[in-house]
Amino acid sequence: VAFPSASRVVTLTTDFGSGSGYVAEMKGRILHAATPCTLVDIAHDVAAHDIRAAAWLVARACFAFPPGTLHVVVVDPGVGTVRRLVWARLDSSEHARPQSAGQEFLCPDNGVLSLALAAHPLMAARDLIVAPDTTATFHGRDILAPAAARLLDGAAPETLGPAADRLVQLGWPKPRETAVGIEGEVIHVDTFGNIVTNLPAALLPRLVAAGRLHVGGHVVATIVRTYGDAAPGTTVALVGSQGFIEAAVVQGRAAEQLATGLGTPAVIPTNPRR
Amino acid sequence: VAFPSASRVVTLTTDFGSGSGYVAEMKGRILHAATPCTLVDIAHDVAAHDIRAAAWLVARACFAFPPGTLHVVVVDPGVGTVRRLVWARLDSSEHARPQSAGQEFLCPDNGVLSLALAAHPLMAARDLIVAPDTTATFHGRDILAPAAARLLDGAAPETLGPAADRLVQLGWPKPRETAVGIEGEVIHVDTFGNIVTNLPAALLPRLVAAGRLHVGGHVVATIVRTYGDAAPGTTVALVGSQGFIEAAVVQGRAAEQLATGLGTPAVIPTNPRR
Amino acid sequence: VAFPSASRVVTLTTDFGSGSGYVAEMKGRILHAATPCTLVDIAHDVAAHDIRAAAWLVARACFAFPPGTLHVVVVDPGVGTVRRLVWARLDSSEHARPQSAGQEFLCPDNGVLSLALAAHPLMAARDLIVAPDTTATFHGRDILAPAAARLLDGAAPETLGPAADRLVQLGWPKPRETAVGIEGEVIHVDTFGNIVTNLPAALLPRLVAAGRLHVGGHVVATIVRTYGDAAPGTTVALVGSQGFIEAAVVQGRAAEQLATGLGTPAVIPTNPRR
Repeated sequence: VAFPSASRVVTLTTDFGSGSGYVAEMKGRILHAATPCTLVDIAHDVAAHDIRAAAWLVARACFAFPPGTLHVVVVDPGVGTVRRLVWARLDSSEHARPQSAGQEFLCPDNGVLSLALAAHPLMAARDLIVAPDTTATFHGRDILAPAAARLLDGAAPETLGPAADRLVQLGWPKPRETAVGIEGEVIHVDTFGNIVTNLPAALLPRLVAAGRLHVGGHVVATIVRTYGDAAPGTTVALVGSQGFIEAAVVQGRAAEQLATGLGTPAVIPTNPRR
Repeated sequence: VAFPSASRVVTLTTDFGSGSGYVAEMKGRILHAATPCTLVDIAHDVAAHDIRAAAWLVARACFAFPPGTLHVVVVDPGVGTVRRLVWARLDSSEHARPQSAGQEFLCPDNGVLSLALAAHPLMAARDLIVAPDTTATFHGRDILAPAAARLLDGAAPETLGPAADRLVQLGWPKPRETAVGIEGEVIHVDTFGNIVTNLPAALLPRLVAAGRLHVGGHVVATIVRTYGDAAPGTTVALVGSQGFIEAAVVQGRAAEQLATGLGTPAVIPTNPRR
Repeated sequence: VAFPSASRVVTLTTDFGSGSGYVAEMKGRILHAATPCTLVDIAHDVAAHDIRAAAWLVARACFAFPPGTLHVVVVDPGVGTVRRLVWARLDSSEHARPQSAGQEFLCPDNGVLSLALAAHPLMAARDLIVAPDTTATFHGRDILAPAAARLLDGAAPETLGPAADRLVQLGWPKPRETAVGIEGEVIHVDTFGNIVTNLPAALLPRLVAAGRLHVGGHVVATIVRTYGDAAPGTTVALVGSQGFIEAAVVQGRAAEQLATGLGTPAVIPTNPRR
């Protein structure tokens, strides 16, 4: 595994809250590594214990990083129980350089990698060996951060523990083709209030042919390439930067205006508008 | 251009929200550079699409950085439309070392550099060439971040695109001398609730002579050198750290107590108090 | 003093708010150092002027960092007044490597190191010499950050100013043994709503023997090793990751559910439950 000449990147994603001090404790432990690294926060304000929200953030952000980046994810309602802690490497060659070593992860095996695994195959995984005298409430600081430091200093992942065959994968809603059209749903609301559906970008021709997107009881009839293509206040449908069809209000907050949230139906109707 | 021996600094200012994951995506792309850099967040909780608030933050913070720092600013309500994306270099020699290379910027040309340009002359600017197949909704990640990585790796700014003569500059309210006195207004409320006016520090002798500052309907009659010079709860006027006259409540929140916001009149009256 | 081979770490703890831009100004000044460093945020959303909250965060997080880390703390309601600014080094050898150089600090001498000093002895301290023409409202940027840059570049702490013998230490409530039991109180509520008491981990056998913890008017009768040992919604008592007994609601927010805050009595009763 050859890394770029710049120092290796370690990201952190937690539900600790950026003001908690817990994130800093983890970084302090990671920085005990003798090898320089670059620390990057993905997010620390994930809703407490919300594994699905963390899985979304991680899957979105992780493949933007250079090959060999180590992503430490701690959204862990089961801390201290028998759930496994794992190291994993995902292939990401289609996104990265030819010599890609993939993206690496240290996290509880609770489904937090589900969406990343849906996009990229698992190359290798290890069950972390946990010393029996480890404190029971903060595995992020006491197990994952030291493991990250060891990896930075060149330890082989094989030394972390025995091979793991597969990781927990949470089910995610998939769009279905029915008599009414392609039925999907809202799977994310971003910080701008944009409503992200599970309808992939590949369905854009279908959306354009239909001429509208139904979101809950609302009909979004303006289909654009980008937010700036319509006047402020217009409700639009477009392909968002993560490759899914979304609904947005230009310079406004669609989630509030359309009163939608996770699970709201999002449908590309079969019949063109009359 | 000679940089300090420590690694080059790249700052980020956005309205993405620090919990959005979008900032991390940009950092991931920047870190594809082979050259090490130091990433610093200026702010990511700028009110969505508020170009003026971003212009304030950037102008305040950017000149504190070492020469050659690259500031990436993405508050971009016009993303995907014809507004230009630019690289710019501002002179900052009065603030920095003699060998200053100035401060550099990558941003949409929408006025976000207005206040920085009011303080320091533009040395050079380039229109970024945007490939026609670029995604339309996230130029920060897909255009500005890769441009930052190229610059880090030594690309000359000239290779980014053709020269740009001038940048968009938004008008900003300026104080006016009238019969009542010097009439300014509130242009910023900081995180402590301190009320920053557009009355520059040079007007302090006038303020001291007047003995009071009018803010909206309130009279602030205690003029101090620093917050700690008056008892907690006192409403004071002073010169803030950014060089403007401000009103503050010692260990309190002036904005709430004086019920002021952007645009509230702030006046140094002509006649001394009777 | 020998530092690890990775670059020296500088942490920042302030009450500026992460969106204020003030933190970035300080970082910009620190990065004028010619020597590379790694900047880490501990927290910037400390309640404005709350020295005790900052003292808690600093004491919790600082000893997780490598020896020689420099912690810059700016919660400073007395900015611009005669309170001293200090550099200090605390021994932390029990927590760190044998060659530990301890943890270093730059901060106002207002008690913000009280809790860290309660855990680790003061090795050395200096009064920072403040130039008379320094701006009066932002000593973090104008005095502490440049001092940090000088230390990074190898300046001896002795050059910062004269030796300081002792630092301000705020009193902190200590548990008392009374007829009812061991009476402590709530000293911190974390971002998960967990209620941290001043009852140290060493009292766990007493807690287990008592079979319950009284928090305000509530009786917490489920004593566990970790959050995951009880069903979601259960109110539990346990030893938290910072070494104090705490009360928590599994996957919930104890502070709200038990209506407790700082100062709420927390008692391990003498008599086992009838």
